[in-house]
Amino acid sequence: MQKKAVVGIDIGGTNTVFGIVDQQGNYFAEGKIKTRDYTNFVDFVDELSFQVKESIQKFDSYISVIGIGVGVPNGNYYNGTVEFAPNLPWKGVIKVTKEIKARIGLPVIITNDANAAALGEMIYGAAKKMKDFIVITLGTGLGSGIVVNGKMVYGHDGFAGEIGHTIIFPDGRPCGCGRNGCLETYCSARGLTETYLQILGKPSANIDVSSIDSKFTFDHAQQGEQAAIEAFNKTGDILGLALANTVAHTSPEAIFLFGGLANAGDLIFIPTRKSFEKNLLNIYKGKVKILPSGLKEGNSAILGAASLIWNEHL
Amino acid sequence: MQKKAVVGIDIGGTNTVFGIVDQQGNYFAEGKIKTRDYTNFVDFVDELSFQVKESIQKFDSYISVIGIGVGVPNGNYYNGTVEFAPNLPWKGVIKVTKEIKARIGLPVIITNDANAAALGEMIYGAAKKMKDFIVITLGTGLGSGIVVNGKMVYGHDGFAGEIGHTIIFPDGRPCGCGRNGCLETYCSARGLTETYLQILGKPSANIDVSSIDSKFTFDHAQQGEQAAIEAFNKTGDILGLALANTVAHTSPEAIFLFGGLANAGDLIFIPTRKSFEKNLLNIYKGKVKILPSGLKEGNSAILGAASLIWNEHL
Repeated sequence: MQKKAVVGIDIGGTNTVFGIVDQQGNYFAEGKIKTRDYTNFVDFVDELSFQVKESIQKFDSYISVIGIGVGVPNGNYYNGTVEFAPNLPWKGVIKVTKEIKARIGLPVIITNDANAAALGEMIYGAAKKMKDFIVITLGTGLGSGIVVNGKMVYGHDGFAGEIGHTIIFPDGRPCGCGRNGCLETYCSARGLTETYLQILGKPSANIDVSSIDSKFTFDHAQQGEQAAIEAFNKTGDILGLALANTVAHTSPEAIFLFGGLANAGDLIFIPTRKSFEKNLLNIYKGKVKILPSGLKEGNSAILGAASLIWNEHL
Repeated sequence: MQKKAVVGIDIGGTNTVFGIVDQQGNYFAEGKIKTRDYTNFVDFVDELSFQVKESIQKFDSYISVIGIGVGVPNGNYYNGTVEFAPNLPWKGVIKVTKEIKARIGLPVIITNDANAAALGEMIYGAAKKMKDFIVITLGTGLGSGIVVNGKMVYGHDGFAGEIGHTIIFPDGRPCGCGRNGCLETYCSARGLTETYLQILGKPSANIDVSSIDSKFTFDHAQQGEQAAIEAFNKTGDILGLALANTVAHTSPEAIFLFGGLANAGDLIFIPTRKSFEKNLLNIYKGKVKILPSGLKEGNSAILGAASLIWNEHL
């Protein structure tokens, strides 16, 4: 009997990667195309579908592919679309699932990258036995995927889980969304960098301001530089408060931090947990874990996208 | 054939009321006992169960009672308990469902009063056709019940939906929960009263400060008094912002405002909706309704409690 497998596709602003994986996370094939090279979506989906089909055919005798999961910024589960994604080359509303299905002939499910990360955590990662948890992706921005009672929360319109755009300080930093004080303006790679720059005030002459990014801040904090450590502490303070407020909505068993900023380890986890416990309502105190993701960053996006299909079949 | 019916029990700090109702909301019987008269829970549950059984037996030939739903502050769905309810006469953890079931012999389900209100809205009220919505109860405090994909959100511990205890201003008003700046310290009958007193500064000699409550504020606002109107506007400003942040979690189709403060109508709905739309993330704007409850206040608590049983049987 052929082994069941699914295709996971992760569409990012720079690259699109895909893989064929089984339920244990074994890879049969992988591929990659440059998203930015395709200003026309039809050219993009032609090339992507061609490569995916070719990969599937190679393993035809061993595996039976049951569906294709797609993780993409601003992906909408209900509509099968990508809608007004600021970092992708295609404008407006793009019918992603319809176009891929027309070319490959398999069921296609789409959602945004943070929801895919949450499903990946549930199928392949550290949330395997959990029914209520949240994944926070700390990249350039802050994404989130909320799972309640074993099911992804999509909301009435497919756009649930935008915790990065909860307003923390009404008169705070300007956000890319056009408002002020969104969580992601403080708790993200970009937010950390800005906090570090603020603490430095006028950076000393031997620091090139344009070189300051989250890796730079991380390196300086690791070397024990007080200003950089303080930047992590402030970021964790705010994140802990925001996550305490999130718990008062869906009361999860755990919140997973994922992505570049989460890889800073204790530097971000310790101040976040401290602020989180301090700000939790009594009935939740000591009950909700803040944990690192159980997925390796390298292939997590493909596994997350693949989980969209497993989640509907399990 | 006997008609199916359920018992709804609402346990409040002052009174406990119950009713036998069918799926259309018709009442067969009603009853009431004074919660405060029973410092011992066993005495309370003896008397309550006796009265409920008597009512059921009266209608034995017409109806078949399939279960008992209980709405009570700090009620826990999973454990069947009331846990550390500050406004009830019984301390610690009380095994409510076990004790009632032992006396009446019917299935018993319990949850907190705000969750019961949300289920009541779904079964009997204005959310009949909705799968994703939230009910906010604006009483002395602020309670909330969150429904996602047609199911009540209980969270991993049964305590989900405490939006009244999201921290809006970290250094804000002291809250009964021991923290500062919780939403309910601003957006509740008590919060409105405090805001009105703040705006008045030193109230003029002909106002007795102790007489100022939300009804007093409402009456003055209705008479066109600027300070009272401003108190409602400030309350709506804060509530609108908080609800916009809530939408970024579960993206509901509608948010229902229920309870004393919601009965102020335009005085609270207009500023709340204005601030809500202003503070919503773009993708949600114009899509989420803020509506009055479709239940009449008089019997809504019993209908909400009864809905706990219908919700599991439909």
